[in-house]
Amino acid sequence: MNNETMTNFLMKRAFLTPDRTAVYFQDKALTFKELYNYSLNVAGQLQGLGVRKDDFVGVLLKNHLDTVIIFFALQLLGVRSVILNNRLTPSELVWQLEDSTSSLLILEDSFTDIKMVINQQLASLATITKSDLFAKKENEYADIQEEINLSDICTIMYTSGTTGHPKGVLQTYGNHWWSATGSALNLGFVESDCWLCSLPLFHISGFSILMRSVIYGMPIVLHEKFDVQKTIEDISDKKVTIMSVVGTMLTSIVDALTVSGLPEHFRCFLLGGGPAPLPLLEACVKKNLPVFQSYGMTETSSQIVTLSPEYSLSKLGSAGKPLFPSQLRIELDDHTAASPQHAGEIVVKGPNVTAGYLNRPDATKEKIREGWLHTGDIGYVDEEGFLYVLDRRSDLIISGGENIYPAEIESVLLSHPDVADVGVIGVDDAKWGQVPIAFIVKRESAALPQKELQQFCQTRLAKYKVPKQFYFTEQLPRNAAKKLLRRNLHEMINEK
Amino acid sequence: MNNETMTNFLMKRAFLTPDRTAVYFQDKALTFKELYNYSLNVAGQLQGLGVRKDDFVGVLLKNHLDTVIIFFALQLLGVRSVILNNRLTPSELVWQLEDSTSSLLILEDSFTDIKMVINQQLASLATITKSDLFAKKENEYADIQEEINLSDICTIMYTSGTTGHPKGVLQTYGNHWWSATGSALNLGFVESDCWLCSLPLFHISGFSILMRSVIYGMPIVLHEKFDVQKTIEDISDKKVTIMSVVGTMLTSIVDALTVSGLPEHFRCFLLGGGPAPLPLLEACVKKNLPVFQSYGMTETSSQIVTLSPEYSLSKLGSAGKPLFPSQLRIELDDHTAASPQHAGEIVVKGPNVTAGYLNRPDATKEKIREGWLHTGDIGYVDEEGFLYVLDRRSDLIISGGENIYPAEIESVLLSHPDVADVGVIGVDDAKWGQVPIAFIVKRESAALPQKELQQFCQTRLAKYKVPKQFYFTEQLPRNAAKKLLRRNLHEMINEK
Repeated sequence: MNNETMTNFLMKRAFLTPDRTAVYFQDKALTFKELYNYSLNVAGQLQGLGVRKDDFVGVLLKNHLDTVIIFFALQLLGVRSVILNNRLTPSELVWQLEDSTSSLLILEDSFTDIKMVINQQLASLATITKSDLFAKKENEYADIQEEINLSDICTIMYTSGTTGHPKGVLQTYGNHWWSATGSALNLGFVESDCWLCSLPLFHISGFSILMRSVIYGMPIVLHEKFDVQKTIEDISDKKVTIMSVVGTMLTSIVDALTVSGLPEHFRCFLLGGGPAPLPLLEACVKKNLPVFQSYGMTETSSQIVTLSPEYSLSKLGSAGKPLFPSQLRIELDDHTAASPQHAGEIVVKGPNVTAGYLNRPDATKEKIREGWLHTGDIGYVDEEGFLYVLDRRSDLIISGGENIYPAEIESVLLSHPDVADVGVIGVDDAKWGQVPIAFIVKRESAALPQKELQQFCQTRLAKYKVPKQFYFTEQLPRNAAKKLLRRNLHEMINEK
Repeated sequence: MNNETMTNFLMKRAFLTPDRTAVYFQDKALTFKELYNYSLNVAGQLQGLGVRKDDFVGVLLKNHLDTVIIFFALQLLGVRSVILNNRLTPSELVWQLEDSTSSLLILEDSFTDIKMVINQQLASLATITKSDLFAKKENEYADIQEEINLSDICTIMYTSGTTGHPKGVLQTYGNHWWSATGSALNLGFVESDCWLCSLPLFHISGFSILMRSVIYGMPIVLHEKFDVQKTIEDISDKKVTIMSVVGTMLTSIVDALTVSGLPEHFRCFLLGGGPAPLPLLEACVKKNLPVFQSYGMTETSSQIVTLSPEYSLSKLGSAGKPLFPSQLRIELDDHTAASPQHAGEIVVKGPNVTAGYLNRPDATKEKIREGWLHTGDIGYVDEEGFLYVLDRRSDLIISGGENIYPAEIESVLLSHPDVADVGVIGVDDAKWGQVPIAFIVKRESAALPQKELQQFCQTRLAKYKVPKQFYFTEQLPRNAAKKLLRRNLHEMINEK
């Protein structure tokens, strides 16, 4: 089919506009041609290691120029990148690497402890540090996949569902393409555009900026991590026009900014990562900071709903309307469409929506029905079709932009011999937006100090997932079907 | 498949940005919401006539606001529009209507003679004038196709091959979509954009502007036909930023413009319709008129190769590089790829390229092989991959074994101050096989002896390229898109 093939994105971009800047990182800048040549070298080095088209390769890297090069090297080989969250514990990483049948893991030089544990627990997996990879002799002729198929899998990112283990979300080249073009049709795209990325590249929010860069031919400014002063500096110095942020980042920027606001060339903040608090949006209006609220997830390859320029004030608090290529529906429990102003499950469809989960036909079938992805999120649309997201998910906790799924923490705590039952919820936190806390029902007569539970979690969960408080209780509120009533846990907090 | 469905383009656009202006025509303007509502009405009227999804409906209309409404009404019903050239003879129209199995023809009120002939020759075909259609009672509930499939056929436009009958080029919604987004990624797209369309809507050059309008959410200024003064006026008054032109139109604009050039908001002319003469491009540079040369055809749903902003000066005369989603190759007679600077057939591929010709499996197979469309055009690429279009293969003159490209000779003659227009063809010659001859339109009142033109050419062209005869004429035969009809020049020779 004509419709399905295209030249490898970076290869095409380096051909079209070789001399445009692709990435600024620290004091370096690479043009698209340079980025392509570096990626080509690394592709040769990877091939020398035996990496081949359609392999799954784990990537555990920080935001860095080298990371960009490695991602594009993997694309040049037609490899499926399993992009791993740096904040996971070794055992969480092992689980995802095993589940994805990854044949190689590329990781930071500094992750020596992690490397050791992974090598012990998953002896079949080859691991290599970034420096060792770059020191390899390269294959003279890298077997480059000049043509890609839009349905080829480009990346896999794991998300934790509400129950059980995390699932690998399949993101095709087409998903990334449609996400990038859908966004451009909404936000517009001009030659002077430059996108600041300080969100992690291992999240779709950061990775999608990389894909926009090659598809648009647009420079990005890459930061290792969010730093409010560096952000404000680079917006001026590097002529940044767009920046993706989550609420906590935007709050810092608003607080740090003097009344003068940002330079005129700055076009907008693209705000994701959960419903934005109204006071923040109002503060942005006051400081004349253009903010586009958006809604999206790993399964939609970043934003799928965004507030259009002309409505950014009159629909403050709304996430907007679905991007041109995508569709949105609010579904009631009986699967009929909700009328305006009535809350229901947010259901989406479009060419940017994942085809499913890696090796999880059942989960795929459950979440995607007739092309419609059931997000599990709750929201409503107004009479004009603007989406208002109510609960990111009734049980989801968003802490500093990271998704935390209570079920995952509950599952860990339940594995403690002295824990009989457990319920986790998120509570508001001035710094992180939300933090997880846990309600524990102890086994009879067990002496179970809070500190022990903390340590138990710390060895099994990323730090941000460890509950900040443990409350002991006689019984958890559950309905007749024994489903935990998390809403009632919130009431219990208020009573405390 | 998720990837293949989308909301009907106009319906989605009217939902996203209802209050943006869609079309300016004469003293009227319609927003997208108004355009949608009018189109919905007409869809109901068409349905009342028995028109149903997947029907073929002929459209023989002039550039007009009503035409825009009718086109979108047909899309709302999922009808395949057979878009007919107004300049065809009744018997040519009958042929295309019969070939496409059209069940209805919608035509201008003023085309009474044509209507009569068509009714006589094709009694099975229902015909209706625009006014009669608009006077019909509408179906209360039009059966609107809210969702389209990208592989659904949206339009059919006939192209004449060099031999035999014209063929109906299938243009899917996907073809139009990819053409529009590929163009946006190259030219950029900003909210203030406004595209002037004075090319006929029955050509892909005009129709594609209509599709960009709904896909981008961008107003267009529609003119009945090209009028240089109205063009210059509307560029100022309606804040036009982009205009599609062919060479002769651009020449008129350049001639009519005072030294001051165009207002600053004007971004560019998109120049298509055949190789542009260098003197014209140079005149544009002198008058500071940004021109993007492009190359495309009905089969590629408009431009497929365009010169990127940064190369508009350094690669003057090139059509540029293939748009991001598309690919280009120069093929030698033995089907191998030509090396840079070597002329061969221009071969293209991409999601904007037609899947084939209506009911012509053989022609489809001949022209499209493994996804690559064999254009029949001759060109070469330079070392950096920039395309230079030499000529239509069918127009190629072979003289004593040398290839002569008429466009090259025309470009030289056009640089003569007393030449207003020129057309070159090859005629049979006993000695050389073929020799070039030229038809010249003099500038008013210029005395221009044949001998002077000969000498002018001799100093600028190899001897075998110098036309053996110069014929003076009042006007050259051009089609509605102002493209030179070399076939008619041959007829003029025979009449002489």
